[in-house]
Amino acid sequence: MALEIITLTTDFGQADGYVGTMKGVMLARAPQARLVDLSHEIAPQDVLAGAFVLARAYRYFPPETVHVAVVDPGVGTSRRAVLLETAQGRFVGPDNGLFSLALRETVALAINWSGSPADVPALWHPGFDLAAALRGAAAERLPRAYALTNAAYWLSGLGATFHGRDVFAPVAAHLAAGELPERLGTPIPLASLVLLPHLLPTLHPEAIEGRVIAVDRFGNLITTIAAGLLRALGPLERLEVELGALRLVGVQAAYGAVPAGEPLALINSAGLLEIAVANGSAAQTFHAGVGAAVSCQRPSPNDS
Amino acid sequence: MALEIITLTTDFGQADGYVGTMKGVMLARAPQARLVDLSHEIAPQDVLAGAFVLARAYRYFPPETVHVAVVDPGVGTSRRAVLLETAQGRFVGPDNGLFSLALRETVALAINWSGSPADVPALWHPGFDLAAALRGAAAERLPRAYALTNAAYWLSGLGATFHGRDVFAPVAAHLAAGELPERLGTPIPLASLVLLPHLLPTLHPEAIEGRVIAVDRFGNLITTIAAGLLRALGPLERLEVELGALRLVGVQAAYGAVPAGEPLALINSAGLLEIAVANGSAAQTFHAGVGAAVSCQRPSPNDS
Amino acid sequence: MALEIITLTTDFGQADGYVGTMKGVMLARAPQARLVDLSHEIAPQDVLAGAFVLARAYRYFPPETVHVAVVDPGVGTSRRAVLLETAQGRFVGPDNGLFSLALRETVALAINWSGSPADVPALWHPGFDLAAALRGAAAERLPRAYALTNAAYWLSGLGATFHGRDVFAPVAAHLAAGELPERLGTPIPLASLVLLPHLLPTLHPEAIEGRVIAVDRFGNLITTIAAGLLRALGPLERLEVELGALRLVGVQAAYGAVPAGEPLALINSAGLLEIAVANGSAAQTFHAGVGAAVSCQRPSPNDS
Repeated sequence: MALEIITLTTDFGQADGYVGTMKGVMLARAPQARLVDLSHEIAPQDVLAGAFVLARAYRYFPPETVHVAVVDPGVGTSRRAVLLETAQGRFVGPDNGLFSLALRETVALAINWSGSPADVPALWHPGFDLAAALRGAAAERLPRAYALTNAAYWLSGLGATFHGRDVFAPVAAHLAAGELPERLGTPIPLASLVLLPHLLPTLHPEAIEGRVIAVDRFGNLITTIAAGLLRALGPLERLEVELGALRLVGVQAAYGAVPAGEPLALINSAGLLEIAVANGSAAQTFHAGVGAAVSCQRPSPNDS
Repeated sequence: MALEIITLTTDFGQADGYVGTMKGVMLARAPQARLVDLSHEIAPQDVLAGAFVLARAYRYFPPETVHVAVVDPGVGTSRRAVLLETAQGRFVGPDNGLFSLALRETVALAINWSGSPADVPALWHPGFDLAAALRGAAAERLPRAYALTNAAYWLSGLGATFHGRDVFAPVAAHLAAGELPERLGTPIPLASLVLLPHLLPTLHPEAIEGRVIAVDRFGNLITTIAAGLLRALGPLERLEVELGALRLVGVQAAYGAVPAGEPLALINSAGLLEIAVANGSAAQTFHAGVGAAVSCQRPSPNDS
Repeated sequence: MALEIITLTTDFGQADGYVGTMKGVMLARAPQARLVDLSHEIAPQDVLAGAFVLARAYRYFPPETVHVAVVDPGVGTSRRAVLLETAQGRFVGPDNGLFSLALRETVALAINWSGSPADVPALWHPGFDLAAALRGAAAERLPRAYALTNAAYWLSGLGATFHGRDVFAPVAAHLAAGELPERLGTPIPLASLVLLPHLLPTLHPEAIEGRVIAVDRFGNLITTIAAGLLRALGPLERLEVELGALRLVGVQAAYGAVPAGEPLALINSAGLLEIAVANGSAAQTFHAGVGAAVSCQRPSPNDS
């Protein structure tokens, strides 16, 4: 028997029963499905945060997993409902950029893209041009996208405000239970999917300029600067990292590398530069959040 | 093999392990059961909030699902533990009103009640008299209630403070695994179940007066005024909705109908009138919460 | 088919997708496993809170259950990763004291320890000397511990900061799916496991001096003073309990024993003395938290 897994990522919170309702709809249609919550605490309407949580998690699941994501400020408007089918996972939700990080990564994997430095994943590599990849690659090698248009698979809902329950949950369940994507909707060009503006870093000869893309529960400031870009700049232990007035020398491998309460720059579990405070909160200590500028410079000769 | 689903609705929060303990008790007795959280963030002791979350969610689950709810200010006193068996779900918890919305709805469904306007569900219809329905209907058509009195199915607990673990979890698991209700307790009259005061609206020739029954994560103010009652008053796009000093003209179909930051009245995913702020919080903007008066009036002739 | 259950206890919160990622890793390796959250809201780095949540919950699960716990301030340092195999459950996580309460209890059970009063569990009994028990018992009767050293079962991770995903999740999944502990690591002496300082009470002829070990969602102040120790001091209804300036006479059996808003001392669902406010928060009312001194005295003759 095939393994049926459905993950859920929403901004619904866990207090109001919205998520449980979606699960009821799913289990009524896919009784064998395993339901896994990725997050329901995405800040209301924060599509970028949803895209980032999903991008960080999806590749740890079996590739046939269905990932439902509902952060949907445009619910009830004309925004499309979509399915993105890739070799690394299947994504169901509104077409508003929620899947743009996953699309970038799965397209690069599909065409075996690699840049220099070679150990920087395409998702975080400024040199990977998604639009060019979509234009240049044979369609049969790429992921496929569908507009979810077949209302026969939806709930006949009472309103236009809860597509998580009425559209995405039943479609995901039918998909997990084996229904063909072609039955659920209409093929659409990958290039037509909505993409988020991507916070990729800018590379200079002596420095990298990036930004914070997420703040986690511990107050860690996560940037989109990948470890490999840093290594290309010089030895990690001598790089200089700046966030506002904060200047750190050296990029560490673990939180425990500095005493409790001290700030540090490190490579985190997603392979990204992160600014943290050991056993504390960098976001609180430095009053910084998503979008804050972070730069990293080669060691100055005077320091050596 | 029968599908065994148990949902959980509590005010235990998710920090202390109380819910996990209940799940351990359940899985030890019903190893095949699928456990689904509806909410554990019901405000402490808020029986009405628990009843509302449950009422909004239960009908999306298969009808043999067991719904355990524990919001239980009277734990350890003489309040009864009960099972309510209906054709739309089975409810296990304290007899304190938690199931009074589900009872109202399932009784109306059992007797095929319908009022006018015909598209207002009995749960929200001021014209449905539950007590009269219970007196008038043949017992064999109605749901059945049991007092959970058979301690052989309980844990031999250490105290009288955690019936979720010691009584409701094991009873729900045995029920899901196929045990007969008659073994778990004693039949009791439906009319003996504790009912919450119901916040049904008052109908006037030119207006409806209602109240906020719930505030969700987004700060949306949910009333018990059903869409059908509004439609009977006039065309939705011309009705006047008032909450305190706020006056809105027209009831919308989706949040996106107004610009971000603007207030709106709309029909929500439960078919109820809701006051929201697009991409914002109506509860914060208007300093309103559960119990706040909301009225809806026919369009005044001057406006037309 | 064996029942495979894995519980998770972490300080990761539920917003960032860390827990979902661990579940993806687990389901990819143990597709049949049932995953149960105990808590992900342990305060960041609070090992004692994690140990307490785990100690209170684990015995309600089937004994073959794998309990993964990750509250791990030392991640990336030289702290060991361990597996503790007991007849009441299997524990996987960092060796930092997270399992010290479970170890204390399972060792006492393994050697059938009993003290006086006989109804005080060894976990909370000041008379149980864990170190002496470990020295005195035949090894084959005791639980077994392993250092998780076989990297073949780990993910080849990107960093040293997320052992929940890279080490503990895959090890737990392999264990649940039937892998032998000997394959996963190396036996180590039980006595080498890190233990937390234990907040056991001090017994005097006329009084017991204890401390608050946890505060739950309701603001209840949970102490480590077991019911049996209190009973040995005198009739519960006449004992005098003190917390700061608060003095309560009598220990109750249920929250409903006093009117709403009133403080009370009671025996809670774990068999421990607890100070609560009926339908309120004792932590807020009395500005007390973990570590606060609580004493209990025999009734003074004048009172009788």
